[in-house]
Amino acid sequence: MAEKILIIGGVALGPKAACRCKRLMPEADVTLIDENSNISYGGCGMPYYVSGEVQSIDALRATPYGRVRDPEFFASMKGVTVRSQTRALSIDRAAKTVLVRHTVTGEEEQLSYDKLVLATGASPRMPQVEGNDLDNVLSLTRLEAAEVIRRACEAGKVSEAVIVGGGFIGLEAAVALADMWGVKVSIVEMMPQLLPGALSASMGRMVSHDCTQAGVNVYTSEKVIRLEGRDGTVSAVITDKRKLSAQLVIFSAGFIPNGQLARDAGLDVAPFGGIVVDESMRTSDPNIFAGGDCVCIKNIITGKPGYLPLGSMANRQGRIIGTNLAGGRASFSGYVGTWAVKLFKMSFCGTGLTVERARAEGFDAVSVAVEQLDRAHFYPDKSMLGLELVVDRTSGGVLGMQGSCTDGIALKARIDAVAAALQCGKPTVEDISNLEVAYAPPFAAAMDVVNTVANVADNVLAGRFTPVSGAEFMELWEKRHENNIFFIDARPARAGQAVQAEYPEWHAIPLEDIRNRMHEIPQDRPVALICNTGLRAYDCVLALQNAGHTHVSNSLGGMQAVSKMGLTP
Amino acid sequence: MAEKILIIGGVALGPKAACRCKRLMPEADVTLIDENSNISYGGCGMPYYVSGEVQSIDALRATPYGRVRDPEFFASMKGVTVRSQTRALSIDRAAKTVLVRHTVTGEEEQLSYDKLVLATGASPRMPQVEGNDLDNVLSLTRLEAAEVIRRACEAGKVSEAVIVGGGFIGLEAAVALADMWGVKVSIVEMMPQLLPGALSASMGRMVSHDCTQAGVNVYTSEKVIRLEGRDGTVSAVITDKRKLSAQLVIFSAGFIPNGQLARDAGLDVAPFGGIVVDESMRTSDPNIFAGGDCVCIKNIITGKPGYLPLGSMANRQGRIIGTNLAGGRASFSGYVGTWAVKLFKMSFCGTGLTVERARAEGFDAVSVAVEQLDRAHFYPDKSMLGLELVVDRTSGGVLGMQGSCTDGIALKARIDAVAAALQCGKPTVEDISNLEVAYAPPFAAAMDVVNTVANVADNVLAGRFTPVSGAEFMELWEKRHENNIFFIDARPARAGQAVQAEYPEWHAIPLEDIRNRMHEIPQDRPVALICNTGLRAYDCVLALQNAGHTHVSNSLGGMQAVSKMGLTP
Repeated sequence: MAEKILIIGGVALGPKAACRCKRLMPEADVTLIDENSNISYGGCGMPYYVSGEVQSIDALRATPYGRVRDPEFFASMKGVTVRSQTRALSIDRAAKTVLVRHTVTGEEEQLSYDKLVLATGASPRMPQVEGNDLDNVLSLTRLEAAEVIRRACEAGKVSEAVIVGGGFIGLEAAVALADMWGVKVSIVEMMPQLLPGALSASMGRMVSHDCTQAGVNVYTSEKVIRLEGRDGTVSAVITDKRKLSAQLVIFSAGFIPNGQLARDAGLDVAPFGGIVVDESMRTSDPNIFAGGDCVCIKNIITGKPGYLPLGSMANRQGRIIGTNLAGGRASFSGYVGTWAVKLFKMSFCGTGLTVERARAEGFDAVSVAVEQLDRAHFYPDKSMLGLELVVDRTSGGVLGMQGSCTDGIALKARIDAVAAALQCGKPTVEDISNLEVAYAPPFAAAMDVVNTVANVADNVLAGRFTPVSGAEFMELWEKRHENNIFFIDARPARAGQAVQAEYPEWHAIPLEDIRNRMHEIPQDRPVALICNTGLRAYDCVLALQNAGHTHVSNSLGGMQAVSKMGLTP
Repeated sequence: MAEKILIIGGVALGPKAACRCKRLMPEADVTLIDENSNISYGGCGMPYYVSGEVQSIDALRATPYGRVRDPEFFASMKGVTVRSQTRALSIDRAAKTVLVRHTVTGEEEQLSYDKLVLATGASPRMPQVEGNDLDNVLSLTRLEAAEVIRRACEAGKVSEAVIVGGGFIGLEAAVALADMWGVKVSIVEMMPQLLPGALSASMGRMVSHDCTQAGVNVYTSEKVIRLEGRDGTVSAVITDKRKLSAQLVIFSAGFIPNGQLARDAGLDVAPFGGIVVDESMRTSDPNIFAGGDCVCIKNIITGKPGYLPLGSMANRQGRIIGTNLAGGRASFSGYVGTWAVKLFKMSFCGTGLTVERARAEGFDAVSVAVEQLDRAHFYPDKSMLGLELVVDRTSGGVLGMQGSCTDGIALKARIDAVAAALQCGKPTVEDISNLEVAYAPPFAAAMDVVNTVANVADNVLAGRFTPVSGAEFMELWEKRHENNIFFIDARPARAGQAVQAEYPEWHAIPLEDIRNRMHEIPQDRPVALICNTGLRAYDCVLALQNAGHTHVSNSLGGMQAVSKMGLTP
């Protein structure tokens, strides 16, 4: 008899598992249920639908050939039965049945299965504040919400919007609203930085600067208290610090995995709600698989259970489940946490742990940053690319890397190389120093920025200099009347002299002159160096140390990093 | 007493080793000699100087700040003594001296050393044909040659040029001459394809097509017999098949490592001329290091000694030697062979072995190819990206990957990820299926092309279908009157019908209709399927196999791959 496969959830993982299983085991009876009408859509594309870059909602539901993936498509093209508007209420593991209810008719039914797949996804975390049920208070996690937002923008009903939470979707929504619709956007984030968890505090400032440069207000360390409405529609957001008028509020405060159905059925579920699965993506019941935004997966770097709700993870896990449903032996060994986001002028991208996250996990972590051109400096077309490498002092092991660049794809190339290294081995700083990436002048520098950042880490681990971040350098500069530090700008003379003209404490001593002008630098004061990217200053650090200076620091990423943070002397 | 470091060779590795050593060991006495006047230049940038994209020769010799790296620069900024126009004649390892001669004055001198570095580079392979000493017969390996070529182009003296050898520099020179100067360029390559060794025969056709589309004549499997001249300057190239008139001939037939000095000194040198070094980049004499284009290094994939003369390798190895000169313990574990080249409309990039190379090395290798958009298909800005993954049937291990795309950086991102995996582990097809690369719609597809190519490899290794390359498919099509194959175009109806209108043997049966029209497909004939990229045809293959067909093949990369090769039905 044909094996009965039942899949609960039809956005990304569900359809992938269904189609893969059906390809390998054509005789299987595969049914997919979903409580909504729309299934199998590119959820990550919603911000681009809001912005208008994606013309129609159907484009997010269509194959590359424009065929909309509706139940009829799955039936005729894939041999998969889809029942939409059908909610799973409970699982009877002994009887191998799922009780479902049609969301419109209310009709209930028992569906039997031989193998069950939970692809129940995640729900947006909706802050429990007064007014969160007003109209135009949404999370950008369902096609219907994307439609509401775009219609409201098209109708000119939104002149001000507030994004609550500075995560990926919130920032992408901010770009869509501000850049394309001219909406005055404010982002309110409880944590002291945007993209907390994904980027260091230092790089979080670069994200904020990119947003504020585009006219977006960024309010970090600020909490939403309540929402106010007019005629049932939101009109203002009240935070602990201000009132922001808004005709649209988008919540982007993270996700909670939908693990209740699994928990009710007695399956192992982590305290935060993620369903526990093994490497074959099986739950604690071998007849039940789970994957995508509803599961807890192993973080390869920490070795601990973690969570990474991303459409790409769901797709890859879906294929694994499909293979295993058909009797195959595919496995998923865990995640390292690789991501990318395109903002206004800048893109940001990362893999593995940030320095703060690594320390919280118990690593003796340090991070180093560089700014360097992504291609040969003599090649005409190029961009300044910033990388921050996170390493473990004890082992010299690499724990993660994050970066920023106007050329998002050039950035992705460096991040993905380190991501692959983290997945396939336990790379050391030396491995990244020698990482053999594709080189020719239109593609990279002979000593590529990914090699350089590891070289700098090597120098820091070897104690060759004391690194400070651009933000730390500027903080020292701000407090120059308290700390007795001697500040040196090692850039070519003209750049440094322009600052020195305004602030005499800013000493323009180019690398070219450092040896000749050594006598100008007091031996009894700490020295803080900065240059354009950190490279020239490093040579100055060594010259100063050779001359007997013992307290010399170098600002990583130099003025390039500082200006990406929106800071100026 | 200060340690005496002597470095022979001043282009890439030499200066890097010198500066790194001097940074770590400021008291060292570091001398660098080179037989030419120009040192420390970006040799890989020469094609871009010829094209005019790089304005001046000095730009290739300068730091990012425009400071030319001449002997005075090394003396004042780096504390390194440079003696140019100084040729090393012999090494006396017992006395620890090097006999040198000034190339202009002829004066000879013994230089003593505590540690010696051989950075003697490589020489272009100059075919031993009559006329190879004529004027305007050059290899693009020295700044002086780049200057001659550019001046000749600027003066309008070159209307036809012949490139002998279809390697990287030759192709880059072809682009510079044809694209920027409107020169009529012909490429003559002895092997049956361009970029032999770097790309499969199949992808070699894509390179040829990119060149011919730009008006370049490509003559493969063709040998240069002699050169003819007029008044001492080249005027024509005579091959075994034709006469090509030419005012400029560029040899790009590979490199021979300059190992003679080492061999004469009794150091271990491989038969092909590469100096043998260990992981610390030491030669068989522990006081002598060597690196860059003159050494033999381990290929990590084959485990055998190999050769990879690339500026990026030289830079990274230079840093390792610098560290070890200063008493450090840096090591170089080998290479996988990662490269990139930008041609006319297309860029090509690769890592590891090609399928032909892998078979020659004794692997039971197979390769699979896909064409897929590099970003979410609904995202407006995107490119078709082709990848060919080379795998070992026996172990399921990945041996290499090569690709093509109009967006070279998007291609680099995929190649570098696999390159890193090859360096840090022994990745399997499953590892690449699950490779966690950065995803968001402006960066990648949820199931990225690098995952897809591994998924296809998985299906091929599992025997789920018989792959044929686009070139093989078109060959079968050409011979359709001999082979009894039934050809199906599974693209949406309109595309296939346009071809069918001209050739009735081309059956337009879109995936949508395959089940309904199964009766049209004869059970007793082999079936060859093609679609746009290979994806729809795969679903058709499975449908046909379910219906009892046993001889069904799928054209990998579909019509996208076929048209990249310049083939049409």
